[in-house]
Amino acid sequence: MSTDGLDALLVIQIADLYWLAGSIQQGALWVPAEGEPLYMVRKNLARAREESALGRIVPLASPKDLPARLAEARLQVPSRVGMELDVVPVALFRRWEKVLGSATVADASPLLRAARAVKSAWEVDRMRAAAAVSARMFERAGEVLRAGMTEIELAATLEFEERRLGHQGVVRMRAFNAELFYGHVFSGPDSAAPSGFDAPLGGRGLSPAVGQGAGTRRIGEREPIVVDFVTAIDGYLMDQTRTFCIGGLSEDLTRAYDDMIRVQDRMIEVARPGVAWGTVYDECLATARSLGHAEHFMGAPGSQVSFIGHGVGIEVDEPPFLARGFTDATLEAGMTYAFEPKVVFPGIGAIGVEDTFLVTGQGVERLTLGPRDLVVR
Amino acid sequence: MSTDGLDALLVIQIADLYWLAGSIQQGALWVPAEGEPLYMVRKNLARAREESALGRIVPLASPKDLPARLAEARLQVPSRVGMELDVVPVALFRRWEKVLGSATVADASPLLRAARAVKSAWEVDRMRAAAAVSARMFERAGEVLRAGMTEIELAATLEFEERRLGHQGVVRMRAFNAELFYGHVFSGPDSAAPSGFDAPLGGRGLSPAVGQGAGTRRIGEREPIVVDFVTAIDGYLMDQTRTFCIGGLSEDLTRAYDDMIRVQDRMIEVARPGVAWGTVYDECLATARSLGHAEHFMGAPGSQVSFIGHGVGIEVDEPPFLARGFTDATLEAGMTYAFEPKVVFPGIGAIGVEDTFLVTGQGVERLTLGPRDLVVR
Repeated sequence: MSTDGLDALLVIQIADLYWLAGSIQQGALWVPAEGEPLYMVRKNLARAREESALGRIVPLASPKDLPARLAEARLQVPSRVGMELDVVPVALFRRWEKVLGSATVADASPLLRAARAVKSAWEVDRMRAAAAVSARMFERAGEVLRAGMTEIELAATLEFEERRLGHQGVVRMRAFNAELFYGHVFSGPDSAAPSGFDAPLGGRGLSPAVGQGAGTRRIGEREPIVVDFVTAIDGYLMDQTRTFCIGGLSEDLTRAYDDMIRVQDRMIEVARPGVAWGTVYDECLATARSLGHAEHFMGAPGSQVSFIGHGVGIEVDEPPFLARGFTDATLEAGMTYAFEPKVVFPGIGAIGVEDTFLVTGQGVERLTLGPRDLVVR
Repeated sequence: MSTDGLDALLVIQIADLYWLAGSIQQGALWVPAEGEPLYMVRKNLARAREESALGRIVPLASPKDLPARLAEARLQVPSRVGMELDVVPVALFRRWEKVLGSATVADASPLLRAARAVKSAWEVDRMRAAAAVSARMFERAGEVLRAGMTEIELAATLEFEERRLGHQGVVRMRAFNAELFYGHVFSGPDSAAPSGFDAPLGGRGLSPAVGQGAGTRRIGEREPIVVDFVTAIDGYLMDQTRTFCIGGLSEDLTRAYDDMIRVQDRMIEVARPGVAWGTVYDECLATARSLGHAEHFMGAPGSQVSFIGHGVGIEVDEPPFLARGFTDATLEAGMTYAFEPKVVFPGIGAIGVEDTFLVTGQGVERLTLGPRDLVVR
């Protein structure tokens, strides 16, 4: 905060609140550069006090009462306050800006997101719990998959499996308009359908109202079936993809799948603390290209994304970004990210593999479980 | 738009995009006060052209290109542009504001939300499709409910039923930080737990990370079990609540349930085009009070909400708001809203009933299906 010239943070978005306060009860968290934070809660105060380990939790009926609450806590409105300007809507921001008086409001999101990118042992433990549920779901996928079932039937069955094992339901994304419901299940040409979202694969979805994920197509033999699920336990996410097929795939697609494993292996060789995010991306892109995957790597033509991996934690679109152009930011021990090399064969289908990794002192550890192989039924 | 002094709208949020363009492909929709709209799409252009009935759909690589795209379409940047300031984040807003040059940007959300509140026949038809799925799920709830199962087991089973019948998964809310995963399933004292969300009931949820909905409590006999689900088909929502029990409820709770039906009946008597939203609220609150429900109506003490009904459409928090203080806004034919009288008995449980209604020429029509009775197993 001192480096960014911030005297205090005013945090109101629930993902950040959960990380800082351990509670998402409606309100605002004031974090002074020095001293104890103050959690001001509109609804529900008793519950915030029960859930949060913070020592100072007080009621707040309206943003207007902020100056009074700060004064009571012997905190002054400082000259420079940080807010989450990447997520706070304009109208709401203006209400808070007004009560902050003459203070300048700066964007504290880069700071918050950078801090959140490095996970504590407790956070990694929650992610391991999610990895166990994810692994069980992928086993179940292999058990229930059969030709003739629809994508949505398969998706519903796997969602049920995760939910009964404690998936929290909600999968949080930070980007405006971004939304994800568990993840994606699609087959054959559906898996190669481009979408409006910043993901390598999209799928047709049930209708243009959602426009991604499982549709009503019947799953056939000898075609790729992609299951890409985000498992969420106690607020923490794990992102994993496996490709399935019934009766095997063509030589081209089988080879492409093996190639994606090689791209992931290249990442495992390269990634360690101190390496730039963009370097990991460049090295892995070079491997994909050397294996003959240029035009259709990480998306259908015209819908390719310029990343192969993304941070995962409370939100699914966190730093680090293993993406083009990130030449300065480097990996640090404790960072967690999903790495998802994928290839699209337009009109035929997509294949890919995705696991979530933890950056350790020396390299990376795979947190997601189970074999990485193409699953042939 | 003329009344609001707006020469054009720049629409970027997906719920509004879906309503205006029939597609949520990433981009921006320019709606001039006169003439044809222009849908500028970053990703995926081909899909936007396939999904949308609009005639003018062009690529847009970045907000920076807006002036060029407008010029090509013979549209000028006007002096006053409307944007969705209740949902667009500050950082993104600033990027668009810059390319709009000297134009003033006003909040167009009240205008858009008011227009969206009155549904077309096609929209009502989509909501009827959702009502059919909702009804099937409530039948299923009666079939599978048994003492000893956990709330999350019941929730997972009902979510599976809705999903395999075509529930789109995502349930959209407009308010900042608001999120909903299908809805709520809770039992006994859990159903009376207050939460941080602007809803009469909240529940404990699986952890403080989500803090609402089903938890791991085992469902018992002679206690209320509340199922409150939002069903979403082709972008359109239906909101319905039924209260269940195994072996009956105490006299107090049974009478309270009947009272909530009487509150809903009072709404059906009062609601028709031209009646103020606040009048419906006041009349129904008076009924609830006359039946002895004041302190615990619409929420646990300290967590009571000041509404009994809310509009439902593409989002679950739409106008009309059947809430305190809405003395000017009136019901119009074509509006759709959920009406959900509920009572909390702290430490014991909550009961309530909710249906979604369509305002017709003369009064209201119930869109949700099935009996309204307390379900005793």
